[in-house]
Amino acid sequence: MTNVSAESAVLSSARDSSVSARALNVAIVGFGTVGSSVARILSERSPAGLRLTHIFNRKVERKRVDWLPESVRWTDDIGDVLAAEVDVVVEVIGGLDPAADWVRRAIKSGKSVVTANKQLIARHGPELLRLAAENNQHLTFGASVAGGIPVISGLQEGLAGDELVQLCGILNGTCNYILTRIQSAGISFDEALREAQKLGFAEANPSEDVDGLDARAKLTILARTGLRVSADPNEILARSISAIEPVDFEYAKLLDCTIRQISRAEKTSDTLFASVQPTLVHASSPLAAVEGGQNLVMSTGKFGGETVFAGHGAGGNPTAVAIVSDLISIAQSPTRNGAAVSDAAVPLPVSFDFISRHYLRFFVKDEPGIIAALATIFCRSGINIDSVFQKPGYPKSRLPFVITLEPCKTSLVEEALQHISKLDFLVQPCLNLPILD
Amino acid sequence: MTNVSAESAVLSSARDSSVSARALNVAIVGFGTVGSSVARILSERSPAGLRLTHIFNRKVERKRVDWLPESVRWTDDIGDVLAAEVDVVVEVIGGLDPAADWVRRAIKSGKSVVTANKQLIARHGPELLRLAAENNQHLTFGASVAGGIPVISGLQEGLAGDELVQLCGILNGTCNYILTRIQSAGISFDEALREAQKLGFAEANPSEDVDGLDARAKLTILARTGLRVSADPNEILARSISAIEPVDFEYAKLLDCTIRQISRAEKTSDTLFASVQPTLVHASSPLAAVEGGQNLVMSTGKFGGETVFAGHGAGGNPTAVAIVSDLISIAQSPTRNGAAVSDAAVPLPVSFDFISRHYLRFFVKDEPGIIAALATIFCRSGINIDSVFQKPGYPKSRLPFVITLEPCKTSLVEEALQHISKLDFLVQPCLNLPILD
Repeated sequence: MTNVSAESAVLSSARDSSVSARALNVAIVGFGTVGSSVARILSERSPAGLRLTHIFNRKVERKRVDWLPESVRWTDDIGDVLAAEVDVVVEVIGGLDPAADWVRRAIKSGKSVVTANKQLIARHGPELLRLAAENNQHLTFGASVAGGIPVISGLQEGLAGDELVQLCGILNGTCNYILTRIQSAGISFDEALREAQKLGFAEANPSEDVDGLDARAKLTILARTGLRVSADPNEILARSISAIEPVDFEYAKLLDCTIRQISRAEKTSDTLFASVQPTLVHASSPLAAVEGGQNLVMSTGKFGGETVFAGHGAGGNPTAVAIVSDLISIAQSPTRNGAAVSDAAVPLPVSFDFISRHYLRFFVKDEPGIIAALATIFCRSGINIDSVFQKPGYPKSRLPFVITLEPCKTSLVEEALQHISKLDFLVQPCLNLPILD
Repeated sequence: MTNVSAESAVLSSARDSSVSARALNVAIVGFGTVGSSVARILSERSPAGLRLTHIFNRKVERKRVDWLPESVRWTDDIGDVLAAEVDVVVEVIGGLDPAADWVRRAIKSGKSVVTANKQLIARHGPELLRLAAENNQHLTFGASVAGGIPVISGLQEGLAGDELVQLCGILNGTCNYILTRIQSAGISFDEALREAQKLGFAEANPSEDVDGLDARAKLTILARTGLRVSADPNEILARSISAIEPVDFEYAKLLDCTIRQISRAEKTSDTLFASVQPTLVHASSPLAAVEGGQNLVMSTGKFGGETVFAGHGAGGNPTAVAIVSDLISIAQSPTRNGAAVSDAAVPLPVSFDFISRHYLRFFVKDEPGIIAALATIFCRSGINIDSVFQKPGYPKSRLPFVITLEPCKTSLVEEALQHISKLDFLVQPCLNLPILD
């Protein structure tokens, strides 16, 4: 080794330590609810080693607030942020376009990125993590799943010593709010949705939430972080909660259960079983106790058993806490550590075909022989009926009743339901929900 | 800067990176339930960057197992471990003596320490953390509170962005087991304790658990980690669960509550309110749902609100998961980072004087005027009675009844109870439990 290279190594190491000594310059890209909460926490708590220097937003002038230092630069040109001496970009604009492009450019220009963007990480996480590693930058996404609940760091670090095999949770507060309202107020899905929209819990276009696409992105991230399995979110079954009716909560109650939108992932040697769908959960499960907009994640490890993380899954402040926690962790080791790069996720084929008990709710025109017709079809498929419930007091023309099935593969039930769908006493398609045991 | 110092800096930096490249040598000190679980996980999972090299135990020969590599050195001389090229010592012997001395010597001889020892960290944590920082070594203690539940890292890192103001939890599985058994089986404290001892959940001398000393040490660690307040564990009120009788669960149920050993800490600008005591918790609280040996910690932050961590608080495997998680984190950044040293805990005076509702259970010889006598005393102290319950069916000579009080300072209640203790209709001292709202 020549002295020149020795000296330059020393200098660069000196530079590194000067980076760790001076505060990191932080830019917030997107000054909506979460972005302004991040700014608020940074200004109220002033965590060591972090200084807010830039805020980007479209039409930024209408966003300007008086409670931030004069020194903060407000801009509506992302180029300003990318060209500036910013160390960490907080990306809270959401969506894929232009977020993906901007995050790539930020990393390539030598900036770390802290993001709350679940779709971005679910779809482009591996590529962006690689890019960050190549550029010696951090890319963290603790806020992308379950807002303020520190589940990403919990799975990645706190439970690193375990071998996690299963994850299960309530990852979408909007769905949970709607379902708990159908349950407690006995109102229809449409009414509960309108209520959630009025309160600002649901978007004008609610599909992302109620059809499970939001939770599916989060489940993809959890599976990668906790189970170390990489999967394409599009391959994960996502079923809407829109078919749930108040009567389903009445029947669920007879089974000592309630209904929640459950995201599940289970890893075997050759398959990732995963789905997001309305599911019956036992009243004694912590999942049943999750009310309103709360979130909960339960992990099962080979050694440590079940661990539960619960709290506020959304909202400006809880999400901002996760972002600031990521910022603090970067401030504490600004020089990226090679070892932490390891993204050891293994790609596995994805299946929705869990083995479980099933809850089937039919609406029929009442006539003799209905149960016999259904039982014949299940029998042919080798499926055992576990129980039959028919509550009194409903019109004969649209009579709800419920059959539960003993544990079997979901695909087998789907196949039987294909045959059943042709029976002419059905008033509407059968609702098929797994029962979580 | 001379070339010599430049070169030596480079060499030392090269040495550092070679440390991070080679696996860290790990010694397990104490090969009981937890120690052997750590060895098992290290040998089954072989996490990158860690190699088990030494096992210490008294009379080590009887401990030797056949499922570890031949290369592991078994010893009953702690000097062997301290003198060897060991990078991390896992301390799982428990207690203060000789653990404190050995941990100090390990750190001084250039070793990092991972410990599950709550008493050690509660009493000597600040001193040992300072010593570790001075010697550029890690001292981690994720396993010291709530076993496999990653609450230490959750508070320290995952919620670093928040300002936590309150912690509350069930930190002792033995007490929780005993209380849930009194509740479900209607047996006495003594019977439930004997049961727990038979099952190996309680020690022959159960005082550490049932009198709250174990939970108090854990609460001290949580307050330091989460609230950034340092306190002497001896100053925290610890009350035994041994006075709880089955009848208390019956009355608690009338109040829609159950009874748990609750550890609480709340930080104000000038005081740390803290206590460990049997407490009434509402049936809808996550605390009420904690059954058997489980643990739960709930933190409240100024920005993120309530976050819950729950799971297996004890047992070989869950505790070992926490230890291996700490080991992995050290392996990922073996060179200790100066920023992480910050132990910014502030010393505050400790008070048990929470303002809360109170549950008072009396056993009396029945006679006229009892309620009037009690009411007079409470009235004089300015305490308002909230409700009075007297269930039928008990002997007149030892009649249980319950008074609940409106929110007031615990000290005020204690003072009134001093006067009450002199009343001659009391068959035994009044049981005074706070009600958590």
